[in-house]
Amino acid sequence: MPIPASLNHLIDALRILPGVGPKSAARMAFHLVQRDQRGALQLAHALENALGTLKHCRQCNTFTELDICEICLDEQRNHAQLCVVEMPTDLMSIEQTRSYEGLYFVLMGRLSPLDGIGPNDIALKQLLERASNGIVTEVVLATNFTTEGEATAHYVAEMLRARGLQVSRIARGLPVGGELEHVDPGTLAQALIERRRV
Amino acid sequence: MPIPASLNHLIDALRILPGVGPKSAARMAFHLVQRDQRGALQLAHALENALGTLKHCRQCNTFTELDICEICLDEQRNHAQLCVVEMPTDLMSIEQTRSYEGLYFVLMGRLSPLDGIGPNDIALKQLLERASNGIVTEVVLATNFTTEGEATAHYVAEMLRARGLQVSRIARGLPVGGELEHVDPGTLAQALIERRRV
Repeated sequence: MPIPASLNHLIDALRILPGVGPKSAARMAFHLVQRDQRGALQLAHALENALGTLKHCRQCNTFTELDICEICLDEQRNHAQLCVVEMPTDLMSIEQTRSYEGLYFVLMGRLSPLDGIGPNDIALKQLLERASNGIVTEVVLATNFTTEGEATAHYVAEMLRARGLQVSRIARGLPVGGELEHVDPGTLAQALIERRRV
Repeated sequence: MPIPASLNHLIDALRILPGVGPKSAARMAFHLVQRDQRGALQLAHALENALGTLKHCRQCNTFTELDICEICLDEQRNHAQLCVVEMPTDLMSIEQTRSYEGLYFVLMGRLSPLDGIGPNDIALKQLLERASNGIVTEVVLATNFTTEGEATAHYVAEMLRARGLQVSRIARGLPVGGELEHVDPGTLAQALIERRRV
């Protein structure tokens, strides 16, 4: 069937969603126009609204509709601790653990020389300023344990240690409830190297 | 993290997409605002554009931007054959086979008493009119082989046979290249029942 142009554009537009290939995009497009036009319109408005109202927290760089986000404004939290993450989604994952009381800094990316993302392309300068405010004493690096995340952690650690700040890195090892038999060799090797005296 | 309200709305709005649960919706929302704001805006516009321009073909009921769709207007096709499908996506699947030369009729749904969808809720009246134009001689039922699709085919067959039209149903059986060992028992049983003399 010659697909109507506007439907084709919608299919193309849906492919920017993560994990959505040509087949799912077509399925989604038809679902929207066939079965849920009201939901489709709500989605269009939600997109425009989110893009229009979201900005970056002036202190921690995460997404917020305020000038300074609610976490940074929370006086109950430990303002001497700063946890550095790559993305707001990482911040959310840590918040869900309910085991961290300090503040955050969101880089909005990671160093990735292969993709042309260098130190000036993520918020490193802003992090340096933020961490040098005289209140922060410890910076916890919680970038991913990928090549890029590790490189970013290394770079940030060097940068901040030069300012006399205490820098730590979240632990690597077996997951809670993890069995040696089922963990990948790389993680197991690292868990051996980073073993702790008990 | 207290998620900004506009981001929360976006996550909710994305959940109308088929196969998208709360976790993927959140991942998609963050992807859009973190990494592809331009794509997100294009998606919003594509949605609004598609909803604004798509309408139903006056003859076959599929989606089109015209009054009568290109397939119905195609004089090369066999206007005496009408293939009845549930959805425009089904029409596309058949077109992809390049083995059907007739026209279509899209019901935009199926009978589903449990969901309260009866004969008046899908385009059965329009189909009856369309099939009774004096040109159509054979109607091929290509609704799905689900309970609802089968019930719909049965109902449509009764309705059209009463008008003296020849009605057929697409075949059920093993897939091309299918091995008996790997096909489900229901399909195999049906393939035995509907065996053809060779």
